[in-house]
Amino acid sequence: MTYQTIRYSVADAIATIVLARPEKLNAFSVLMKEELMDALDRIDADDAVRAVVLTAEGRAFCAGADISGGTDGFIDGAEAQIRNPDGTFNYASEAARDGGGQFTLRVFRLTKPLIAAINGAAVGIGATMLLPADIRLASEKARFGFVFARRGIVPEAASSWFLPRIAGISKALEWCCTGRMIDAAEALAGGLVSRVLPEDELLPAAYALAREIADNCAPVSVALTRQMMWQGLGQGHPMEAHRIDSRGVLARGYSADAAEGVAAFLEKRQPRFPQAVSRDMPDYYPWWQEPDYS
Amino acid sequence: MTYQTIRYSVADAIATIVLARPEKLNAFSVLMKEELMDALDRIDADDAVRAVVLTAEGRAFCAGADISGGTDGFIDGAEAQIRNPDGTFNYASEAARDGGGQFTLRVFRLTKPLIAAINGAAVGIGATMLLPADIRLASEKARFGFVFARRGIVPEAASSWFLPRIAGISKALEWCCTGRMIDAAEALAGGLVSRVLPEDELLPAAYALAREIADNCAPVSVALTRQMMWQGLGQGHPMEAHRIDSRGVLARGYSADAAEGVAAFLEKRQPRFPQAVSRDMPDYYPWWQEPDYS
Amino acid sequence: MTYQTIRYSVADAIATIVLARPEKLNAFSVLMKEELMDALDRIDADDAVRAVVLTAEGRAFCAGADISGGTDGFIDGAEAQIRNPDGTFNYASEAARDGGGQFTLRVFRLTKPLIAAINGAAVGIGATMLLPADIRLASEKARFGFVFARRGIVPEAASSWFLPRIAGISKALEWCCTGRMIDAAEALAGGLVSRVLPEDELLPAAYALAREIADNCAPVSVALTRQMMWQGLGQGHPMEAHRIDSRGVLARGYSADAAEGVAAFLEKRQPRFPQAVSRDMPDYYPWWQEPDYS
Repeated sequence: MTYQTIRYSVADAIATIVLARPEKLNAFSVLMKEELMDALDRIDADDAVRAVVLTAEGRAFCAGADISGGTDGFIDGAEAQIRNPDGTFNYASEAARDGGGQFTLRVFRLTKPLIAAINGAAVGIGATMLLPADIRLASEKARFGFVFARRGIVPEAASSWFLPRIAGISKALEWCCTGRMIDAAEALAGGLVSRVLPEDELLPAAYALAREIADNCAPVSVALTRQMMWQGLGQGHPMEAHRIDSRGVLARGYSADAAEGVAAFLEKRQPRFPQAVSRDMPDYYPWWQEPDYS
Repeated sequence: MTYQTIRYSVADAIATIVLARPEKLNAFSVLMKEELMDALDRIDADDAVRAVVLTAEGRAFCAGADISGGTDGFIDGAEAQIRNPDGTFNYASEAARDGGGQFTLRVFRLTKPLIAAINGAAVGIGATMLLPADIRLASEKARFGFVFARRGIVPEAASSWFLPRIAGISKALEWCCTGRMIDAAEALAGGLVSRVLPEDELLPAAYALAREIADNCAPVSVALTRQMMWQGLGQGHPMEAHRIDSRGVLARGYSADAAEGVAAFLEKRQPRFPQAVSRDMPDYYPWWQEPDYS
Repeated sequence: MTYQTIRYSVADAIATIVLARPEKLNAFSVLMKEELMDALDRIDADDAVRAVVLTAEGRAFCAGADISGGTDGFIDGAEAQIRNPDGTFNYASEAARDGGGQFTLRVFRLTKPLIAAINGAAVGIGATMLLPADIRLASEKARFGFVFARRGIVPEAASSWFLPRIAGISKALEWCCTGRMIDAAEALAGGLVSRVLPEDELLPAAYALAREIADNCAPVSVALTRQMMWQGLGQGHPMEAHRIDSRGVLARGYSADAAEGVAAFLEKRQPRFPQAVSRDMPDYYPWWQEPDYS
């Protein structure tokens, strides 16, 4: 698949996805969503990829849906399939699904950690698409706008699940109910990003983090860890985590990766883990069932 | 309804509720709860109101239940209705419901954002009643006391749901298990308030935030956003958010408000949203069912 | 019971547990887990104990499982009981339960607040065992390592429930997916600890907190509060908290402790609460059912 709206590359075990419509400030579109989801499938399938960096070209990260032509930019022309004769919508239709949410739910079940390097303005879906990233680093020029209520619409991309957990309910509400732009410093203070960096240090910092993961950690362990933490964030009682942990302690404790990890530790050398996500995920994975959309 | 314990007013699309028993340090009572809940009903019913400021008169915000006469201040004389012959309580009775929790659950489902401007000491229910506010601003003179364990009782007003989500479980436990008073700086550091301001800047800051919401954001969008975020904070999986978002993208993307929001954005002018909370909430609202008390 | 791996003492209403294998950097073992759980049982049963301090002897807090002999340190020789003939594991067996999780779930339902005083490196289970503590204080020499993915294994001890709630999902993932050591300052900035203190001020600060709880707060109120907050953190809707609060307001509002708490407050003296955890927990306690492991 050749991409028109993004660029995808892999080097030294790190995949890079670049939003690449700089002339449109990387406005999100149906095609971009499809290309992003295809890239995520490739990342999951490629054992050579151990971490992902997501960034964008030009001065913006993503200006949101393209509404230069009006509100159709929010909806992508799905009307014919989902509008009932009486004017109501068939919300349960798969065609009614918010594209932003399809993307963030796809990131949610990714097997490799995703580090967002936010180079400029991230507005609307440009902001909410960042929320399932494992780590968000921002350039000093980054700005964020949860502008939905200013446009008469509502936050999407499952941001009502992600944002109050990441920034706290009060910041989430302040940002979404005022709809104002927030700068990198406020994003840092509110926990929306982990670090703010000078523009030319942004990508090096993102790759350094990805490097640290790729060089030191067992890919199967990282894939399981990522799911354990994200799924754990939604669990009601720690016993649910304990059940999964207990499986993990056994399945991973007896694994070839653990033997190598311990040997490398005792020999004070870098590990060379033999197991791969494509073939060595334990028998209890996946332990959850993603709820149906309908 | 004329109020005895609070004052209620609306100006320029902003409702103000003032706790107004300064001679009692605004001690919380059954009457105050009923008057507050009546005011919230008016706010929900009045399309002229687009944001709410809650504050108090005098040097305290609210000193808690009035226990100058003993422990009856905690219970409001409900005993006759809920005490079984054997001395146990009929907890399932509606009459057994904690009044603080009735208030915070009412704020929880409010359709307008509520900004608390905390002018002084907030103790017991005076502290916990603040937790469902969307934004908490504090005067430098504000202080908070989750003093329940010092009085031999327990935290209420659903604070065991709100507080660990707002301030983190460790601060919640430290504050509630020591029962000590915390000052505005500690409240800020612990995430209990968003900002600390000199006394004379407190109300202006609260009104500026309310103004920003009222002037720029669609009321129906704000009402939905508020519910999406609060409900989202309790959801187990982001798919639950995705289902609601997808409905919102359609119902709001095709709305008259969205047409106006986009037009105003493209014309670089302030929007004049035509839709109102009283008549234009989408067909899927409310999408949740508040659990029964019993 | 005489302990071999820990020391246990009670003085002035405060229990102290010390990890006491300094020659092994207090490495966690099956025996240590059993001794810790026995000490927690004694704490729950002893009305003279009103708060707990957990710390360790020597330069480390706990270096994790002892893997000097290989991966058996992760699994504690349970293989014979839980390995099926085909090489898979009988995950549902009680014998398959992660020992770290058994410990953290035991702390989760403790009736007294536990304050961790982290004197040095806390690695692997040494880090995750700290997460159900109510308050974590760190020496400037403390360091933390969620190193699991570097050893080829996965986080345990129900840390996928605790850690993202304590430090936020992004820090949880960064720390667990890189597996790197973090110092006390980063732990403080990320919310993993409440305070960082010079080495010689660590234990005094921990005891001062425990003292504040023991001297001022009703033990039954503290036991209930601790459970309300921890259980509340996993609840879906604040109504669940409201149901429990309402029971608490009645059962505690009419209690002998409340009479004493209010009298002491009005008389401006320290309270002497008559009720005890061993005999005076209210009839609705416990209101939750710990989910089964299987």
